Amino acid sequence: MVRKGRKMEFAKGSQSICFEHSPYIVSSGCVVGSKESQGPLSKWFDKTNQDDLFGADTWEEAESNMQKEACVLALSKANLKPEDIRYLFGGDLLRQGIATSLGVEALQIPMFGLYGACSTSGEALALSAMSVAAGYGNCTLAVTSSHFGSAEKEFRFPLGYANQRPLASQWTVTGSGAFIVGTKKSQVRISGVTVGKIVDYGLKDSQNMGACMAPAAADTIYWNLKDFERSVEDYDTIITGDLGYIGHRILIDLLAQKGIDIQEKHKDCGMMIFDQKSQDTNAGGSGCGCAAVTLAGYILPKLKKGEWKRILFVPTGALMSTVSYNEGASVPGIAHGIVLEHC
Amino acid sequence: MVRKGRKMEFAKGSQSICFEHSPYIVSSGCVVGSKESQGPLSKWFDKTNQDDLFGADTWEEAESNMQKEACVLALSKANLKPEDIRYLFGGDLLRQGIATSLGVEALQIPMFGLYGACSTSGEALALSAMSVAAGYGNCTLAVTSSHFGSAEKEFRFPLGYANQRPLASQWTVTGSGAFIVGTKKSQVRISGVTVGKIVDYGLKDSQNMGACMAPAAADTIYWNLKDFERSVEDYDTIITGDLGYIGHRILIDLLAQKGIDIQEKHKDCGMMIFDQKSQDTNAGGSGCGCAAVTLAGYILPKLKKGEWKRILFVPTGALMSTVSYNEGASVPGIAHGIVLEHC
Repeated sequence: MVRKGRKMEFAKGSQSICFEHSPYIVSSGCVVGSKESQGPLSKWFDKTNQDDLFGADTWEEAESNMQKEACVLALSKANLKPEDIRYLFGGDLLRQGIATSLGVEALQIPMFGLYGACSTSGEALALSAMSVAAGYGNCTLAVTSSHFGSAEKEFRFPLGYANQRPLASQWTVTGSGAFIVGTKKSQVRISGVTVGKIVDYGLKDSQNMGACMAPAAADTIYWNLKDFERSVEDYDTIITGDLGYIGHRILIDLLAQKGIDIQEKHKDCGMMIFDQKSQDTNAGGSGCGCAAVTLAGYILPKLKKGEWKRILFVPTGALMSTVSYNEGASVPGIAHGIVLEHC
Repeated sequence: MVRKGRKMEFAKGSQSICFEHSPYIVSSGCVVGSKESQGPLSKWFDKTNQDDLFGADTWEEAESNMQKEACVLALSKANLKPEDIRYLFGGDLLRQGIATSLGVEALQIPMFGLYGACSTSGEALALSAMSVAAGYGNCTLAVTSSHFGSAEKEFRFPLGYANQRPLASQWTVTGSGAFIVGTKKSQVRISGVTVGKIVDYGLKDSQNMGACMAPAAADTIYWNLKDFERSVEDYDTIITGDLGYIGHRILIDLLAQKGIDIQEKHKDCGMMIFDQKSQDTNAGGSGCGCAAVTLAGYILPKLKKGEWKRILFVPTGALMSTVSYNEGASVPGIAHGIVLEHC
């Protein structure tokens, strides 16, 4: 059952919000690295950088610089200054979210640090929209990033090792996307959100994150349709974050078991951002930046033009650390659903 | 200027919210380890555990078990089931917030993962209160934890090394606090929040976190007083999270420079939770769990009884990772202010 504010009854266990006063995505900014600039979505990004160090000495600082650049782009497109933003919601993949802390520090916006693995862009957009819809400020900023260099170092091996990558592995996108969510009318509004639960099928292979995340995506899509009393046909497309080629197939199968056919409607940012064959990216792209830059660069323009009227955007995350992995823990997933509409 | 909802004017740069319909802290649960059970606050905690592994094989799993136990305690005290909770806001200190992901997984509550270092209990309470006040559900759950064993391994040295600890260092509290925030009237309400900005004085000593965090606490307290048009006298006490003995002195000095004297009003959870001399905890306690269990066990009962009418609770966090530290980055701080009132 959809809830529309204080006076509505809240169904037990229901996890969605339908906004009475939908907030708008006022502007966005996206910055990517060299490999993304050679991929199929290249022309859609605001800024492509051939120097993956973004002028820094370390991968971590590079990611911070990239994130700050995305924020500044989003602010300048909306003709806003950092002090116009009430709250910032941001996060990344690195331990203790350090790319975000050091990236947005200079903006001096009151901030909420988030961690939702690659689902963080969904989490940040959901909280931004919830804040604006509640009247806690006219503008919030949602930002996330990932960087191939820092992520490989964090989760796998330093790049200098030149390790081999299994076919199920995904390539972390070097990119950052920032979104101003506000009350000022634009052509895209966030009409609702479905907040994800942790879904754990007991998978332990951190090199097959598509499989780890697909059950969470299926759960969130299922509950989104149920909570909003919609069918798949009510969406022009359903776009997951970074399930990649393997997770995509699993998602289709899991939903089919529940009688939901999204085969024709499903897209995945991790499948769109790289050319699998020529770019040698195995199961596809991944990382907080993957869904964020694809939304900012490729998805929002289509919504603005009205090419798509209503879509469900579902960033997906795999909740693991090298420590939990080494200790034999499973890799549960989480996915947040954001309903975006042309207006 | 205080903002009270959609129709109020929002002052530029202002970072506080005054709730028109204040949410209540309906119940709380706190669980601590062996060292905390020997400290001055021992008798106030719901559960003290002499087995710091909490029945697990690893420190990380121990922290997860402890966090789940705190949630279950808070739920049972409020006579609620997990499915009665609309959203969970939680986080911890470990990389990729793994103690929380694996700790709350079994509850199956739609969740927002957070990272605010030791300020996370403030961040979780702020977002919980903002959600409930906005009508996004009748009940939310805010939970945070820290564990001495997992934190030493994450940030410093494995316990087996028996390394020496500098006098400025703080002792990470083994503990978890969970709070049900809801619309159901209790004797303590969250009447407002002041969301913190990242404050960076350029300090680089990760073994002196009190000094790194004190400027952020000073900034948040300063803006809380300004935004709410209050003076120090309007609070019965101002309680920071884990500045410890060194951060405490710096905070007093920094605010004195702005003409604000909190000397008589200031308390710090990190100074209260251990006996500095007999427990050999150097500059005091720290960790997400420090502020959370002190709030749940010691502070809330005083508010309930009306011994304190209105207090400002300010959990403080140091935003660093071992990678940022090794790369020579500074350790900025962040602090969130929660206004708690007897009712």
